[in-house]
Amino acid sequence: MERVPILKIGDILLVSIQVDMSDQTAVALQEDLAERIVDTGCHGVIIDITALDIVDSFVGRMLSTIASISKVLDAETVVVGMRPAVAITLVELGLSLNGIRTALNVERGMELIAAAHDDGFDDELEDEPDAETATP
Amino acid sequence: MERVPILKIGDILLVSIQVDMSDQTAVALQEDLAERIVDTGCHGVIIDITALDIVDSFVGRMLSTIASISKVLDAETVVVGMRPAVAITLVELGLSLNGIRTALNVERGMELIAAAHDDGFDDELEDEPDAETATP
Repeated sequence: MERVPILKIGDILLVSIQVDMSDQTAVALQEDLAERIVDTGCHGVIIDITALDIVDSFVGRMLSTIASISKVLDAETVVVGMRPAVAITLVELGLSLNGIRTALNVERGMELIAAAHDDGFDDELEDEPDAETATP
Repeated sequence: MERVPILKIGDILLVSIQVDMSDQTAVALQEDLAERIVDTGCHGVIIDITALDIVDSFVGRMLSTIASISKVLDAETVVVGMRPAVAITLVELGLSLNGIRTALNVERGMELIAAAHDDGFDDELEDEPDAETATP
């Protein structure tokens, strides 16, 4: 099974996804990332998807899961390098990657994480409607 | 054909090799890298091979070529993330990756490039014995 490498750069973990994600690879990546966040105490995860031609619902869900896990471990997740065609397909599929932050490239992602970590980065996410507490 | 993504981080270009390199992929990577070095004016290239289980002579030669191209374009190349087993195999194969600098991880690679760029980074490489000028 292929494992996606996780690179530590300063206070950030960088993951560049280049291979087709299988169930196993996705689960392994989530576990590895969670472990590395705890080991290193990093406050940010940048996921680069420059190499992906297609982001389907499986990958979309994986990104959401990673973002949720990271959030629980006090790390912000930013997805970078999305191709224009991928963005168009995502919207057409009705996948809006809720709760995931995006940036154009790694450098902007790093700025976003640095800024979010200074401010307390929960502010924006709190604005989303919460299905569980909404009145029927 | 798969293209290996090149990420710009500050003054450094980061390449994480995760797929099996074919001739075409290797040539495309060399061309893309040369172009990006010229476009960005970066002084360092870090090639991460954490994901590689095997570095054969083809990959070794590709790394050497990339290092040579980068050097001509005034950029230092550092290979990072080599697994212990890969290092052992390399030596057993008689491939010593001449002219290529290595570091344990991306952060150390960045330090190496920063230091090399301050000092003028040709000093160490000059110490290697040169087969062509050696007396028989």
